[in-house]
Amino acid sequence: MREKLPFSKSDVLEWEKTYPTPFYVYDEEGIRECVKALYAAFSWNKGYREYFAVKATPTPGILRILRDLGCGTDCASIPELVMSERCGMTGHHIMFSSNETRVDEYEEALKLGAIINLDDVTQIEQLERAGQLPDTICCRYNPGSFENTNGIMGHAYDSKFGMTYEQLKEAYTKLKAKGVKHFGIHSMVASCSLDNNYYPSLARELFNIAVKFRDELGIEISFVDLSGGIGIPYRPGETTIDIAKIGEGVHKAYTEVVEANGMEISVFTEMGRYITGPYGYLVTKVIGEKHIYKDYVGVDATACNLMRPAIYGAYHNIRVLGKEDAKNEIKVDVVGSLCENNDKFAVDRELPKVEYGDLLVIEDAGAHGHSMGYNYNGKLKSAELLMHKDHSVSCIRRAQTMEDYFSTLDIDKEFQA
Amino acid sequence: MREKLPFSKSDVLEWEKTYPTPFYVYDEEGIRECVKALYAAFSWNKGYREYFAVKATPTPGILRILRDLGCGTDCASIPELVMSERCGMTGHHIMFSSNETRVDEYEEALKLGAIINLDDVTQIEQLERAGQLPDTICCRYNPGSFENTNGIMGHAYDSKFGMTYEQLKEAYTKLKAKGVKHFGIHSMVASCSLDNNYYPSLARELFNIAVKFRDELGIEISFVDLSGGIGIPYRPGETTIDIAKIGEGVHKAYTEVVEANGMEISVFTEMGRYITGPYGYLVTKVIGEKHIYKDYVGVDATACNLMRPAIYGAYHNIRVLGKEDAKNEIKVDVVGSLCENNDKFAVDRELPKVEYGDLLVIEDAGAHGHSMGYNYNGKLKSAELLMHKDHSVSCIRRAQTMEDYFSTLDIDKEFQA
Repeated sequence: MREKLPFSKSDVLEWEKTYPTPFYVYDEEGIRECVKALYAAFSWNKGYREYFAVKATPTPGILRILRDLGCGTDCASIPELVMSERCGMTGHHIMFSSNETRVDEYEEALKLGAIINLDDVTQIEQLERAGQLPDTICCRYNPGSFENTNGIMGHAYDSKFGMTYEQLKEAYTKLKAKGVKHFGIHSMVASCSLDNNYYPSLARELFNIAVKFRDELGIEISFVDLSGGIGIPYRPGETTIDIAKIGEGVHKAYTEVVEANGMEISVFTEMGRYITGPYGYLVTKVIGEKHIYKDYVGVDATACNLMRPAIYGAYHNIRVLGKEDAKNEIKVDVVGSLCENNDKFAVDRELPKVEYGDLLVIEDAGAHGHSMGYNYNGKLKSAELLMHKDHSVSCIRRAQTMEDYFSTLDIDKEFQA
Repeated sequence: MREKLPFSKSDVLEWEKTYPTPFYVYDEEGIRECVKALYAAFSWNKGYREYFAVKATPTPGILRILRDLGCGTDCASIPELVMSERCGMTGHHIMFSSNETRVDEYEEALKLGAIINLDDVTQIEQLERAGQLPDTICCRYNPGSFENTNGIMGHAYDSKFGMTYEQLKEAYTKLKAKGVKHFGIHSMVASCSLDNNYYPSLARELFNIAVKFRDELGIEISFVDLSGGIGIPYRPGETTIDIAKIGEGVHKAYTEVVEANGMEISVFTEMGRYITGPYGYLVTKVIGEKHIYKDYVGVDATACNLMRPAIYGAYHNIRVLGKEDAKNEIKVDVVGSLCENNDKFAVDRELPKVEYGDLLVIEDAGAHGHSMGYNYNGKLKSAELLMHKDHSVSCIRRAQTMEDYFSTLDIDKEFQA
C-alpha cells in the first residue's frame, strides 16, 4: 500500500459517469516513476533490461508505456507473445520463459526471435521439434535450496521449475555442441520477497556459476536473469524494498565476481508485481450491509475481479473514498456477490463507517488482479482505466459484455428452445 | 470417481481428430441417469423440482438436457438468468439465489418471473428499488450452527449467506405486510457432503420452521429449498451418496412433520456438483517429463482449464488412456504450464508409466471445472464436448481463440506500435 491514494473521491465520481463500478484504474505516473527508478538502480550495467512479466498485467495500454521506457516482456504463451509483438516488442525484447511447452508455442517464440529460456534439459528436444535452435539460449536453474546472505533459507525442492546444477551443465554442453553461441542463466527462488538482499545474493550465485561454466565448459554466459520474486508491501507496516540499494548490492557482486574475472554480463530482471502492483486499484461500490453472526459490507466487485483474497487469503488494503482520514468504527467482512463463501475482499477489517453507495478502493491490485479474473457465476470482468498526470483517464480495456460471455457458444444452435 | 470410464482410448483418438486436446467431455447418458434417479427419489413429493446450480456447468448443451428432464436453474447473475431464459427456463423454473445483489440484477430476475431468494432482510428494500414485490418470495436461512441426526455439527457462523432465525421472522412478517402471498425457505449448511443424513436432517429442521411460522406468523411456507451441499466421491475409497435413501429420509421427515400437521410443501434441491461433476472429464495430453528434485509429468492443460487442484488442493483421479488396467510404476506431480508452482493437477500421484503423447483423463471435472476457468498467462479455455449414447460427440462450446482473448481491447487503438 502507498502512503496515500493518487486520486480523490471527486476524480472517481467524474470517471464513474462514463465507467460504472467496479473498474480498475492504474496510475500512469506511478508506474513511470517506478520503472525509471529501476533503470537508474541498474544503470551501472550496460546491458540491463527489465522483462515485464506480462501475466501480471497483460494490457497493451500498460505494456506500451513500459516499452517506451526500455522494457521487454516475459511471456509464457502464444497470446502473450502476440500481444508483445503488437505492442512493438519483438526479438530479444521478449523472454519466452515457459515450462511444459507445446511445440506450436516454441514455433511462435522462434518466429518472433524471442530469447528462449529452457525450463528443462528435455526441452532441447522439444524446441528442436519446432525448428532450428537459435544462437542465443537461456537455461533456468533450480538450486533446490538457496541461502540468502542474511542466512534466510529458501527451498525450491518442490518447485516444478528449472534444472538441477548437473542438468544445467548437461544442457549447456549439449546446446554448445549443437552450435548455440550465446547463453543466459535464469533463476527464481523467492516469491514476493521484501528482502533487499535477495537479488544481490541470487546474482552473486549466478555470477559465480557463469565464471565456473566459462572455465569448466568453455561457454560464455552473456546474461544473468534474476527473474521476479520481488514483493510489495501489501499490509500496513510492511516496508517497500529499496531498489537503489538492491541495484548497489547486485553491482557489488558484479564487481567482485564478474569484473574480477574479466567478464561482461548483462543483468536482466522480470519484475511484474513490483512495477504495476502498487499502482493499480480496484474501485467498487457498497451495495449492501448485513449483520448476522458477523457484520458484512457487500460491494459490486467480486472475486471474479480480484481473486487473490479468495484463493490466497491475500491482504489488500481498503480505503473508503472521502473518508480517508476518518476513524475506524466498524469491523466487517467486505464481500462480493459470488455464491462462494470465500468471496471476501477482507475479513474482520476495521473501516470507517460506510453507507450504501460509498466508493471503496482496493489497493495493490495492479498485478495479478484483473489478469487473474474469471467469469464464475456469470460475473463479467471490469474495464481497466489509465489515469494520466492530469487525472483524466483513458479506457485501456473495456468491460466485458454478456455477448463476450456467450461468445464461445453457437447462439443459434445452443440456444434453441 | 466412477468405477470405469464411459469411453475408450479409441473414442478419444477419434474425437481428437476434430478437437485438439485439452478438451472437456461430458457423458450425456450419465447425466440423464443421474437426474432420473434424483427425480425418482423425490417422486413422492408432488411439487419436487431440481434447480440446477448453473455456476457448476453454465453450458446450454447441458442445461437443455436438464430442462427436458424437468429441472429448473439456480442463478445468481444476469448472464446466468439470460442463459436460462434462452434455454427455455423462465418463471418459477428459475431460482434467483443471489447475495449482495445489484438493483439491475433484481430487475432482470423480476422480468423473467423468477423465484427470488432473499439473502438478507435488508434485501427487501433493495428488491423494492427494482420493482414491485412478486407474489412468491423465498428467504435464505443461516442457522449459525447445525446438528445433523448422526451428531455431526455444521458451523455456518462465518458464512456470509442467509439470515438468522430472528431476521427470518422479521423478513416474513415484513413481506406478508407488503402483500407477498407465497413463501419459501432455503438453507445450505454443508458443502460437498457425502452424508446420507444431511438432506433429511436439514429438511426436518426447515419443515419444523414451516409449521412454527404457520402457527406464529400466519404464513404458509409452500416450498422448502434444501439447496446444494451434496458431494461426490473424488477420492478412491470414498462412497457415493445413496439418492434413493436420501429421498426416503426426507420423505420420513415430511410424513412426520408436514403431513402430521396437515400441510403440503414442495421440496426443491439445487444440486450442481452431484449432477454434472462425475460425468465431466478433462482430457489432456502428455507433452513433457522432467526429473529434478521430484519427478514431473507435464500436460497441455493448465489450472486455467481446471482450477480446483491449484486453489483448493482438490483431488481429482487421473487415468492414463489405454493403460487403465496397468500397474502403477511412477510417482509424479502432474503439472500444467502456468508460471505458477500451484499449477499441479496431482502431487505425488502413482500412475502407470507414461510416455510423450499419452492421453490423460482427469475425472470428476464436470462441475466447477470449465466454469471456473480463467485466462491467466494468456492461456485459452478449451472446448466442451457432449458424448452421446453411441459415443459420437457434439461440440457444445468451442475452444477460445486468441481473438476472444483480445476481444475487450480496441486493437487499432491499443495495439498501435
